[in-house]
Amino acid sequence: MSFPIAILASGNGTNAQAMIDKMQAGILDIDIVLIASNNPQAKVLERAQKAGIAHLVLDHHTFQKREQYDQALLASVLEHKAQAVVLAGYMRLLSGSFLKGFPGQVLNLHPALLPSFPGLHGARDAMDYGVKLTGATVHFVNEIMDNGPVIIQAAVPVKDGEDEEALLTRIHAMEHRIYPQAVQWLATGRLSLNGRRVALASATIAKAPAPEAALIWPPLEAGF
Amino acid sequence: MSFPIAILASGNGTNAQAMIDKMQAGILDIDIVLIASNNPQAKVLERAQKAGIAHLVLDHHTFQKREQYDQALLASVLEHKAQAVVLAGYMRLLSGSFLKGFPGQVLNLHPALLPSFPGLHGARDAMDYGVKLTGATVHFVNEIMDNGPVIIQAAVPVKDGEDEEALLTRIHAMEHRIYPQAVQWLATGRLSLNGRRVALASATIAKAPAPEAALIWPPLEAGF
Repeated sequence: MSFPIAILASGNGTNAQAMIDKMQAGILDIDIVLIASNNPQAKVLERAQKAGIAHLVLDHHTFQKREQYDQALLASVLEHKAQAVVLAGYMRLLSGSFLKGFPGQVLNLHPALLPSFPGLHGARDAMDYGVKLTGATVHFVNEIMDNGPVIIQAAVPVKDGEDEEALLTRIHAMEHRIYPQAVQWLATGRLSLNGRRVALASATIAKAPAPEAALIWPPLEAGF
Repeated sequence: MSFPIAILASGNGTNAQAMIDKMQAGILDIDIVLIASNNPQAKVLERAQKAGIAHLVLDHHTFQKREQYDQALLASVLEHKAQAVVLAGYMRLLSGSFLKGFPGQVLNLHPALLPSFPGLHGARDAMDYGVKLTGATVHFVNEIMDNGPVIIQAAVPVKDGEDEEALLTRIHAMEHRIYPQAVQWLATGRLSLNGRRVALASATIAKAPAPEAALIWPPLEAGF
């Protein structure tokens, strides 16, 4: 039996789509029981409809307090019997009371190598700082923004002269791979917490890199 | 004619040794005109002696003020006609007046992917936070610790269950490759600054990675 999850999203929903695709391909052992959005215009709602997935708009403008909103959201998610919540471009901070409803079962994605560049503009901030490597992080959600325990990270280079869009394209490509992978690990009960450190129960690793796995940018030249 | 540099170090000096080795192998176009240490016991002094490189102890305990110390250090470095200063495990913050003597010509190395985990314990702090990727950074030095413009970075995985020493061993292996490379780029005039962003003048890149260069940890499994 597949693991039931709810996805919360505010926008285009390309990461939700990556989950839908992997689920439909039989690779990701989940059942997306609900896709909820705070934004009535979010394209992710069309994606849900097309995939035949239950979806819901809860417009935050129609609620007076965050707490009321999050209680309504929590009720919907529970009603659909989700056992975990996956944030995919969900542009609101979840309150503590929501998180208490899903202890250790809420995931988020950030377009930077946390703890570097938290906040709304991870890729742009990385470019402005001038790092040579940035990337993407999937983490458990706690009550501090972009602070929870890290499950998986991907590093990508920042290339001389490229713009934010070019960088984001490469970061998004990584997101669409690491986020379904992290959800699969959660769905199959392979993640455990030791303080802030997330351990992954071993399994056959099909694509293990060489022991000296590393990424250097700019690339080394001959002799170095 | 090789580019004259001074190395400042406080300890073992394995990164200084990496420079010496690359210089002696004819790969790194520098002349190490001075190795200076604030620590009379530093093993780096033996390394200098063995390589026939001028070396000097300036014990900071014998100076009353940081400013006096840094002026004496600056005088020695200038006397040896160094055109750049490379910090290799130099455990003191350089004052603004020293840095003004070498504008844009002082490099440092940090065992983390800055701006994450600045400070004295980059590797340990990364493990405690629970990141899956950390690494090493070579950067220009400014007056804020571990803050200057980034020249090159290397990412390495943090493996489940490993200790700080195992992680540091892999980080150091990267340092010994990226730091001589960064010094070579400086020595051959290929680095330029645009605000905080460091651009590298193009050259034949002998070991260019594939366009999709990335490092993911833990490794993706089949299907992801």
